[in-house]
Parts: sequence; C-alpha cells; structure tokens
Amino acid sequence: MTMINSFDAAAATDMSERDRALVERRERLLGPAYRLFYANPVHLVRGEGVWLYDADGSAYLDVYNNVASVGHCHPHVVEALSRQAATLNTHTRYLTDGILDYAERLLGYFPAELAHVMFTCTGSEANDLAYRAARTFTGGTGVIITQLAYHGVTIAISEMSPSLGDGIVLPPHVRTVPAPNAYHADGGDVGEAFARHVRLAIADMKAHGIKPAALLVDTIFSSDGVLSGPAGFLAPAAAAIREAGGLLIADEVQPGFGRTGEGMWGFSRHGVVPDIVTMGKPMGNGHPMAGLVARPEILETFGKRTRYFNTFGGNPVSCAVGMAVLDVIEQSHLIANAGDVGSYLRDGLRGLATRHEMIGDVRGAGLFIGVELVTDRKTRSPATAATARLVNGLREKRVLISAAGLHANVLKIRPPLVFSRGNADHFLSALDEVLSDISATS
Amino acid sequence: MTMINSFDAAAATDMSERDRALVERRERLLGPAYRLFYANPVHLVRGEGVWLYDADGSAYLDVYNNVASVGHCHPHVVEALSRQAATLNTHTRYLTDGILDYAERLLGYFPAELAHVMFTCTGSEANDLAYRAARTFTGGTGVIITQLAYHGVTIAISEMSPSLGDGIVLPPHVRTVPAPNAYHADGGDVGEAFARHVRLAIADMKAHGIKPAALLVDTIFSSDGVLSGPAGFLAPAAAAIREAGGLLIADEVQPGFGRTGEGMWGFSRHGVVPDIVTMGKPMGNGHPMAGLVARPEILETFGKRTRYFNTFGGNPVSCAVGMAVLDVIEQSHLIANAGDVGSYLRDGLRGLATRHEMIGDVRGAGLFIGVELVTDRKTRSPATAATARLVNGLREKRVLISAAGLHANVLKIRPPLVFSRGNADHFLSALDEVLSDISATS
Repeated sequence: MTMINSFDAAAATDMSERDRALVERRERLLGPAYRLFYANPVHLVRGEGVWLYDADGSAYLDVYNNVASVGHCHPHVVEALSRQAATLNTHTRYLTDGILDYAERLLGYFPAELAHVMFTCTGSEANDLAYRAARTFTGGTGVIITQLAYHGVTIAISEMSPSLGDGIVLPPHVRTVPAPNAYHADGGDVGEAFARHVRLAIADMKAHGIKPAALLVDTIFSSDGVLSGPAGFLAPAAAAIREAGGLLIADEVQPGFGRTGEGMWGFSRHGVVPDIVTMGKPMGNGHPMAGLVARPEILETFGKRTRYFNTFGGNPVSCAVGMAVLDVIEQSHLIANAGDVGSYLRDGLRGLATRHEMIGDVRGAGLFIGVELVTDRKTRSPATAATARLVNGLREKRVLISAAGLHANVLKIRPPLVFSRGNADHFLSALDEVLSDISATS
Repeated sequence: MTMINSFDAAAATDMSERDRALVERRERLLGPAYRLFYANPVHLVRGEGVWLYDADGSAYLDVYNNVASVGHCHPHVVEALSRQAATLNTHTRYLTDGILDYAERLLGYFPAELAHVMFTCTGSEANDLAYRAARTFTGGTGVIITQLAYHGVTIAISEMSPSLGDGIVLPPHVRTVPAPNAYHADGGDVGEAFARHVRLAIADMKAHGIKPAALLVDTIFSSDGVLSGPAGFLAPAAAAIREAGGLLIADEVQPGFGRTGEGMWGFSRHGVVPDIVTMGKPMGNGHPMAGLVARPEILETFGKRTRYFNTFGGNPVSCAVGMAVLDVIEQSHLIANAGDVGSYLRDGLRGLATRHEMIGDVRGAGLFIGVELVTDRKTRSPATAATARLVNGLREKRVLISAAGLHANVLKIRPPLVFSRGNADHFLSALDEVLSDISATS
C-alpha cells in the first residue's frame, strides 16, 4: 500500500518547475512523514461535485475520495457550516440544541439497541474511544484485527493498523487474522473460515492470559482489498467474539453513510448488530467530525468510571454540518444512487474483464468497489507493478484513484456518492485505454 | 476539578422545565460520560466577541473560553472558513498552496530550531503524535508529567492526564512530579525544586529499566492551578530531561497563540526552546485544528520509520481558518491587549484581595490568570467548597468561569483575547458581589 502512490523523486520527471518548487517547499516545511500521491503529484485549487481542478483549470474525475461524499463543496453543506459558524460555536458543557437534534436523527439510522452517541473529531479518535470503552466494559484488553487493517493514527489505534507499514509494531494484546476473502477462498465458506481464525486468535490470547475485549473490523475491509461478500459473512465471527466475552466493533469510517448502496451502514449487509459502531470521514463531507454509537450499558460503565470531554467534538458547527450531510443523502437519494451507479459500474468493469485478462475479480457494494488485478487468472498472482502503472496512468488521464490489499493490486473505487452513470462511463473508458496501453507495452 | 462544575441533579432546583427536558434528552441520547457545567446549566444559542447569549436573549460574559480566542464568531474567521469551504476541501496527499502558506507563517512565530510543522485535528492528537515521535527519536518510553496534568483524551494521552480523575490508571512508563508552585514554595527556588523532582523521576525510571522519552508540560500548568511564575522556572528541568536523553515537549494547547500577553507561546517566558511544541484549542478559534512543531531531526527519524496521514489535518479549510486567526491576532494587537488587560485585571483582583480574605494569591500572565482561594491566608488551606459556590454564584450573575488545581480552589480566568478593561471591570464587580455574599453567609 505504501508504494503505489507515494511521491518518488527519482521518477518525477513529468513535474512542472512550479510543482517541483511546491514539493520542495512542502518537504522543507512539513518534513518527511508527509507523502504525496503519484510520481507526478496533482496540484489542486478547486472542487465541485465529483470534480477536482488543478492550477491550470484542468478537471480531474474523483473516483477515490470518500470524504467529500455528497460532492466536493456541496452548497447546502457549506451554507449550514457558514450560518452556524456565524451564530454559535462552543463546547458540550453548555446546553445547546443542535447536538441533540443531530444525535437523535443520527441514532434513527441505527438499530434500537445502539441508543447512545458520542462525538469526536476524527475516526482515529472514535476508534480510540471505542477501544477504551470496550476495555472498561469487558475488563479485557485483547483485540482482533485483520492482517492489513487500518483503523487510525493515535498510538493505541496505529498499533491496530498494520497497513501503516513496517514502522508499526503490534503489541501483545493485538492479534491479526486473515481478512475474509471470497476470491481466494477456493469455494470454501468465507464466513466460517473467518470465524475459525477469530476463534483460534481468542484461544491463543487466552493461552497467554489475555482477556478479549473486541473484534474490530472495517465492515468492507477496505485496506485489506475491499472485501464485500458474500453478504452475511461477518455473522459467525461476531458470534465467536461474543461467546468469548468480547465486543464487535464495526468501523464504519469508510463504508458508512450510504456508500454501500443498500442502507446507511456496511454492517447491515451482514445481518449483525455490532456493540459499538464508529464513523468518521464522510460524516461532515470534509469538516473534521466523527463519533461512535454504542449499546447504553457499555457507555454506562465507561461514564461511571471516567469522564470524556472532547473540546471540539459535537460542537454546534459540526452538528449543523452533519445535519446538512444527512439532508443531502436523503433529498438527493444518494443511497439509491450509490446502489444504481455502483451496480452499473460493476457491470461495466465486468464488461472490461472480457477484454482485459488482467482483471481477476470485480467486487464491492454500492459505490465501494474493488478490482483485483492479476498476472494470471488461474493462479490469481497479484499484478502489483501493473497496478501501480495503472494508477499513475489514470492520473495522466485526469482520473484520481488508488489501490489497496496485501499486494497493492486491488483498485479502490470510492467516488463521491453523486457519481452518475455518465461519470462511470468516463471512468470505464479511461480505464479501458490505460489497461490497453499496459498490455501493449508489457 | 471534577466536582466544581458538574451537573448535579439533586442540586438542580433552579432549572427551568425547558432546560430540565433538555438535560434529560441529553442523558438519553449522549449517555453518562457527558457532563455539564453548573448545577443550573446554561442553554446557549448565540455568541459574539466576549459574549454568549442564552435562549431568553440574556448575555453572559465569557471569562473562561480560551478556544474562541479572537472572540466568538469573529467575522473575519467565519468569512475565511466559508470562502474556503466553498472552494476546495481535500487532504494532504495532493499539492495545495494554503497548507504551505500557513505552515510558513506559523513557523515564523517559533525559534529557527523548530523548523517543521505537522497538522492534526485536536490537541489530543497533537500530544499523541508528539509522544510517538519522541519515542521513535529517543528510543525511550518514559514520560514525566505533573501531578494534575491534562494533555488529552486518546488512550495514550489520557494515561498522561491524571486530572481526568479516578478512572485513569497511569502506566509504569509515566511518572508524576509536583507542579512548580511558587505560592506553596515557602520562598524556595521554584525552578530548582521542579528540576529536583524531575531528576528523581528520571533516576527512578532508570532503576526500573525505563529509558526517558520526554518531559511533557503545559507551559502555564493550567489544570495544576495556573502556575505562571516566576518566569524562567522551566529551564533547570529542561536541562535535566535533556541530560537524561529525553525531550522537552511544551504543550501550548492552552497558553499558546498570544494568551500570555508577552509573545505567542508560554515557553518563551521561561527562556527555553522545547524540542517539540504542541498546539490546539485557539488555533482555529473553534474550528477543529491542532498541530505540532518540532526540530527536523526528530521528525526525520519518525518519517523514515513510518508515515503519518491525518485525513482532515492540514486541509485547505483549516489552513484558511488558521491564517484568519493569525490575521486577527496581529491586526487587532491581541497579544498587547492580553498583556494590558491581563495586568489591569490582576491589579483589580489584588485590589479585591485587600477586602476579601479568601483571595490567597493572584497570579498569571496576560489573560491566563489564576486566583487561589483559601480559608486561611497563613496556612493557605484550600477554600474548595467556597470556590464551587463562587463559580455557581458567578453563573447566576451571568459570568462564566471555572476552577482548577489539586483542591479545585483556583479560579481559572481565561477569556477571549478581545476582553477589554470594561469587561474586566464588569467581571471584578460581579466577583466582588459574590465574594461578599459568600463571606456574609459562611
């Protein structure tokens, strides 16, 4: 995952003098922990809907950004942000109406068991708080994650995010299991296989005297390679962690807010009700807001033991923005659109697969789609180098996308939910061309 | 600290029916980890400058909120927020100009040694990242904090925040030392005493095989009771941690951005240059943004070992807001105002002390002021119960304030920096009345 889109100075022959100067300025001011997408990075100045514009006025089709989920700079969201910021912005130790109206509306999208909500500013903070609450409630510390999970950047959560690379050392209370992967399952039962690994991890924890606190999963396993099906595969593993006294924490930071096209949350595709659900990225369409919902008894224990005050979390501006995002999702029927255009796009990708041998698998739900690229359909060997060429080739055609998975060979397709069938055609035609270029030159 | 301003249902006899319904709705939706200020909570609907307005249109003087530092809903900040949110809001893996312009301007307020900046969304995330970078750079894990420190709410940082209360268990790598306290020093050298405790903590860590990573201090020791002087007292402790191979991390989340009235940062009052400086709360005047600056070699090591990507951190909207906040600080001469009004206010408080025996000490820098309340000036015994009555009494006079310190007997005075001499007079007169009421009835 690291290599695909990082800025590689040696390869950056196409950069303009102006962009090269920006890159140098960036390195001087921000240091080496900041990485750029693409050998030839994109210099953005404006966004609107599914489009991003560079400094020369060229338009790029955004097929990747799940944060600006209702469309870049959506006027209804910007208006709510501006109006509330001009009226009142303060913290949650005073009574304000907006947080309650938003909390009530947000909880309305969840099963009745999940009756409390808490607000943070980032998905990392939400997962960090979820783990803290799970520890307090269960009395355990053990957490099971998938092999290439990503859950965030705080210390505790980066240690549950092996996809961050070699710098991350997992502590003894964190165990990894292979992600549920239908494409590589050779016809076996994906859900049972996943649950078997979870049970093995629980047994191994117990052998080491570690009490399980939670199974923490991104419900569409984005960094593991966008693993969406078969729907229902989470249920046996959920039963296994609960039998061991642990909680199921569903990380909806990526799949949440309608992206999967069948409802608001990824977990509902699996017929399970998690104990805690975390959310973030698209919640404020770019405004820094995140949170969690949980069964009240979990937060009861936590709230009795300690307090939680997040200076910015749940402030009136964030809540107004969150409300506006929900308005757009509903009024523009974005869940139905994600379902319709997602399905149209997968059909188109499967059409390309009839002509491009490199496409090994097309999967996904709604507008969260993975395309696994292979060098050989029989062995399913990863086409890692070709995927990197593809991502960079699409950038030259002004289509923004990225890749994921253990071998960085899965195209991660995750456009704003206002993506149309016409946008899908545009993407499919660019992808077709670049795939043809790559097979012609390899 | 917990008790002072929490909502106490038994005591809430003054609440209106409407507010009582809001409190119940809050408990039902948000759960028990959320606490309110005051037995009779304030229901806010609007803010402007140093004023907050409740649902009945009554104005409250804000003497406490250091987040809305350039004034509630400042039009220049709101305008920058609105304009940029309508133009472009994306992440740091594309090139954008705003982050570089802001980074350059922000670094201009620091000594040249601190040449890199990284952006997060909250002060908690900034301290979490600072500790992560310090661990990587030093190879140590040990952290020294003060007895009643507050540094944030992530798991790693809540374990360095004993002021959060009994629910927090400090791990073996965290050691506490008494905060440098001139009022209780009996004339001893505050800086030397502080350094002596730091050296003892280092020796004890080493005896346990723990290598020190950092001394982490809020440079005005806010939660420890606003401990501001004598200026310079940090220097010997800074030398001690460096001699042991650890870093000095200055947490400027509360004192930073001009509040101390002598410059932008609290550490400069002490003649030290920290290795890492974290910042947050007032940075975006309420917009969720935070960050750290550091010596480049620290981030060099960190950036080579791992990546850091914060989805919302350093986005174009946050950077535009940050710029606007700096504009207002400069154009409205807020540092000078903090110095002038702060000094005027301390004089006024010392005037009150001639008539109110309860005022044991008046201290602070700029508009960060602590007033320690005692039952007896000779023994300096804490007037804990009276302080709680005072905070609630001021609320009934529509003046918002809080308390801090080991015995919750230090008034924490921290108004927006646009606070005027007239506002100071208003506050002093309300305080005078409530102090008189309390001595008359005790």
